[in-house]
Amino acid sequence: MNPSNEKLIHARHTLAHLMAAAVLELYPDTKPTIGPAIDNGFYYDYEFPTEKPTEKELKDIEKKMRKLLPSWKDMSGKEVPEAEAREVFKGNPYKLELISDIIAKGEKITLYTAGHFTDLCRGGHSESPAKDIPADSFKLSRIAGAYWKGSEDNTQLTRIYGLAFETREALDAYETMMKEAEKRDHKRLGRELDLFTLSPLVGPGLPLLKPKGMAIRRQIEAYLWELHKDKGYEWVWTPHIAKEELYVTSGHAAKFGDELFRVSGKEEKFILKPMNCPHHMQIFADNQFSYRDMPVRYFEPATVYRDEKSGQLGGLTRVRAITQDDGHLFCRVSQIQQEVSTIVSIIRQFYTTMNLMDEYWVSLSVRGDDKSKYLGADEAWEKAESALEQAAIANKLNYKKVPGEAAFYGPKLDFMFKDAIGREWQLATIQCDFNLPERFDLFFANEKSEKERPVVIHRAISGSLERFMGILIEHYSGKFPLWLAPVQVAVIPVGEAHVAEAQKVHDLFKAKMIRSELDASDTGFGKKIRNAKTANIPYFIIIGDKDIAAGAVTLESRDHGQIGQLKVEEVLSKFESEIKEKK
Amino acid sequence: MNPSNEKLIHARHTLAHLMAAAVLELYPDTKPTIGPAIDNGFYYDYEFPTEKPTEKELKDIEKKMRKLLPSWKDMSGKEVPEAEAREVFKGNPYKLELISDIIAKGEKITLYTAGHFTDLCRGGHSESPAKDIPADSFKLSRIAGAYWKGSEDNTQLTRIYGLAFETREALDAYETMMKEAEKRDHKRLGRELDLFTLSPLVGPGLPLLKPKGMAIRRQIEAYLWELHKDKGYEWVWTPHIAKEELYVTSGHAAKFGDELFRVSGKEEKFILKPMNCPHHMQIFADNQFSYRDMPVRYFEPATVYRDEKSGQLGGLTRVRAITQDDGHLFCRVSQIQQEVSTIVSIIRQFYTTMNLMDEYWVSLSVRGDDKSKYLGADEAWEKAESALEQAAIANKLNYKKVPGEAAFYGPKLDFMFKDAIGREWQLATIQCDFNLPERFDLFFANEKSEKERPVVIHRAISGSLERFMGILIEHYSGKFPLWLAPVQVAVIPVGEAHVAEAQKVHDLFKAKMIRSELDASDTGFGKKIRNAKTANIPYFIIIGDKDIAAGAVTLESRDHGQIGQLKVEEVLSKFESEIKEKK
Repeated sequence: MNPSNEKLIHARHTLAHLMAAAVLELYPDTKPTIGPAIDNGFYYDYEFPTEKPTEKELKDIEKKMRKLLPSWKDMSGKEVPEAEAREVFKGNPYKLELISDIIAKGEKITLYTAGHFTDLCRGGHSESPAKDIPADSFKLSRIAGAYWKGSEDNTQLTRIYGLAFETREALDAYETMMKEAEKRDHKRLGRELDLFTLSPLVGPGLPLLKPKGMAIRRQIEAYLWELHKDKGYEWVWTPHIAKEELYVTSGHAAKFGDELFRVSGKEEKFILKPMNCPHHMQIFADNQFSYRDMPVRYFEPATVYRDEKSGQLGGLTRVRAITQDDGHLFCRVSQIQQEVSTIVSIIRQFYTTMNLMDEYWVSLSVRGDDKSKYLGADEAWEKAESALEQAAIANKLNYKKVPGEAAFYGPKLDFMFKDAIGREWQLATIQCDFNLPERFDLFFANEKSEKERPVVIHRAISGSLERFMGILIEHYSGKFPLWLAPVQVAVIPVGEAHVAEAQKVHDLFKAKMIRSELDASDTGFGKKIRNAKTANIPYFIIIGDKDIAAGAVTLESRDHGQIGQLKVEEVLSKFESEIKEKK
Repeated sequence: MNPSNEKLIHARHTLAHLMAAAVLELYPDTKPTIGPAIDNGFYYDYEFPTEKPTEKELKDIEKKMRKLLPSWKDMSGKEVPEAEAREVFKGNPYKLELISDIIAKGEKITLYTAGHFTDLCRGGHSESPAKDIPADSFKLSRIAGAYWKGSEDNTQLTRIYGLAFETREALDAYETMMKEAEKRDHKRLGRELDLFTLSPLVGPGLPLLKPKGMAIRRQIEAYLWELHKDKGYEWVWTPHIAKEELYVTSGHAAKFGDELFRVSGKEEKFILKPMNCPHHMQIFADNQFSYRDMPVRYFEPATVYRDEKSGQLGGLTRVRAITQDDGHLFCRVSQIQQEVSTIVSIIRQFYTTMNLMDEYWVSLSVRGDDKSKYLGADEAWEKAESALEQAAIANKLNYKKVPGEAAFYGPKLDFMFKDAIGREWQLATIQCDFNLPERFDLFFANEKSEKERPVVIHRAISGSLERFMGILIEHYSGKFPLWLAPVQVAVIPVGEAHVAEAQKVHDLFKAKMIRSELDASDTGFGKKIRNAKTANIPYFIIIGDKDIAAGAVTLESRDHGQIGQLKVEEVLSKFESEIKEKK
């Protein structure tokens, strides 16, 4: 989501109020708590009295909202003293607690009213809901449980979600996309295509890659290295644990807190690494580099571990074991722009190959107004921000400067891509870091033989290989292009008499490292073809009497149907050229 | 060490007694505790009174041993009642404790006497020490501290080590080998050649591979995969942690005990995996295989973690992070022999390439007499042992059946190789396992559609990649063959005027994936050559006036000296063919 769409965010926020107003009319003793705008709409959490709506009743609430909407001509806010606010919300302990929270923070209390409904609110609404919000641009979508303030120790409330977009068409498009997304669900496809598995004995959030899933991953990893190997990157390897001191020094111990997995041994305690950067700093530190050696570029696809809550885990996209295609560059401030340009060119090439480059945008995340929140001298920040921006311009990136979105250690470029069904994913990232070199006291000798501090550039192209593979499965709907397909060709003999010839063709493919599968089973011919189609195999080769007579095979494509009779060598060279071109 | 050399083991054990006798003559109030034979000799642990020998005094003890030896004509044992034994050793609390231990185990007490010295002992000595042990075949080597019964809670004793071999020549050869080994020490070479580093912030036993070390490791890994990829192996990936239940099911929780690293998260506890097998069992279990799919072969070079004591850690050979080139095959008993033959051929090819195949032997480790110690039916054991032996014969392996050395879950072939200075290393292993398939209830459907239990073959070719790399560094003394060398060629311009041409040659090599290093520094020419030699780079290319005039370069080899003037293309094709042949 382009973060600039303020009008839509205001409409969603307003609709949360409108839902609360409708709920109160239908369930008068309900206690509304909080109701924010979210990515695709809004929600509101309520404590219902004995009677509670079910999914069935959502339509009634929706109707009531549409009935109230025309009367919401405007929405006005006013600041009120604490006592007045407490009077308005007496009997609603949640709102009273929120009032106390606001007072404790020394902030002002504001109430917003539209129609007959007044809510405790910071503001940010449609100016004229009746005019600004089309009555068919929203709908209520589902009911869920939610704890007050997100804590399991608190009362469980009822959350009602709504979807809301600019127009009815946009709402329809979103719902179509979601239905399409469900069809492409990588958890289901991953099982059907035999790509990965989860085991209760191994644990949640820890997928195991089966041979076919690993075939895809190895192609992606090999391609990533292919894009890096002639650009001065050097592959390193670091262990998966380190002493806590490493992360205290780096600051990750404080930053990751209870997301860290703690490892205890007989004599020593360790941390399961949540990031690779501190390890790479240790490799850099074990050298005496001079300015002539800079930039130094380390590459390592490595697995890091984060203790996500088990309720949030699922498939490949929400995991505890995250294999990052990680890399760290150590360079001078004057080298940032050139290095970033190289990384941008890698990202562009990678995502073009993955058919994800058509629609994208880049957030040039820079410092916000409060400069005290960021580490490092103004001059270095300005140079780094300008280097990132110059690289964005030089590479004709569709970028947008987003103030306040920088990391505390430096500015960054975050790449957002849209998949085949229009969902946006934040994937690649390039980050300038003045923080870690300082914390680890890294330096190289400059022209005057003085110690000079390098800048660190963190970069990830695919981000997490697990998440990226989950996204790819859904993006391609399991129909991987030839070079990525876990099985590239199915060799299908028409009958028993053709098995020997089929075996020969299959063996030839295997010898040429084509991922071939021979279906020599006694399944009927039609069933074999259907199986190959269900498995989304890009090509299948059929071998029958006519083929053997012609010394050829019949080639069919998943995407383009029947291709015709070809010599095996012709098929092989077609495959090899398509694989080479990553088509 | 060939385990059959019983005579030498007996001599070493006898020499331990002889040392104790000599020590008691020189330090009469000493309390001897235990003194076994070990790999290269023997030791004895003592509690000395106030006065304790230093390294200097070892010669005196040695002399005394030689003086006593002629009087040790024979060595006789006798069984004695507990009371008599206690009388003999009164005043020596260690021996008294050992007597209690023997009684507790229900065993018999035996005393052995030679000359005037009697010791509590199980037996296993030279029949006639004076005749059987050459007086110049042993020497005392060093003094160390050692805790009684190996526990830090107990008294610290003084351990004196001795070296002992069949003859003076064998002893000399061992000492020469040890001196040579010191010169080749991989910890020093690893630092000098910039291969790996250890960081106190990361922790002991957790080496980080620097770019040059990783270059070697990637070559080894790629070669291993090359040897497997056309033999039906499929690459899988599994996370580094799993719930304890996985290891309780597999039996590793009990087997590894306090060598397991325990991982705690907010909600769940995990184990840092000590082995990959249980994970691979989970991948197999997530399929419905039929007999047509067997054998199923998984390949995964993966890092496992074991909590070795920090005092035992060092370099690459004693680590806590162990990357195994692991693989597990699931097959029918009838398929064991064929599969083992394939693995043997891989091992043979791999170790021939590594110049380690000239002298080797294989232990066919089978069950001992007490069959109750082993899991699985006699019939399966006999089939598996016979399959392993048939494979050994068919592959003309230099093997030896070693009863009692099987794993509790099945028989195995353990491969012992001798490195360039004659040290023996146990590296590759092939193990039959009837245990894990049972524990994980694995099965496939046989011809009658009944559930059939597969056998698991565990195999590792290099064993641990860290340890193997440590051994290789010492085996090659840092002078890696071209295909493995982290830097394959140094390009050295004679002077400033030749830098541009040298740069071109260097760039061409890089583009062809030759690991080239350009020395364009202002160091003198002679120094540059010396640096390249110190770095053990297999080839260096010199570019001077004459070379530029001839449109050529001068090639020199680390191992064969000056080669002469060649066209760059000729050099490149020479390199490419040597790399391909792994020479």
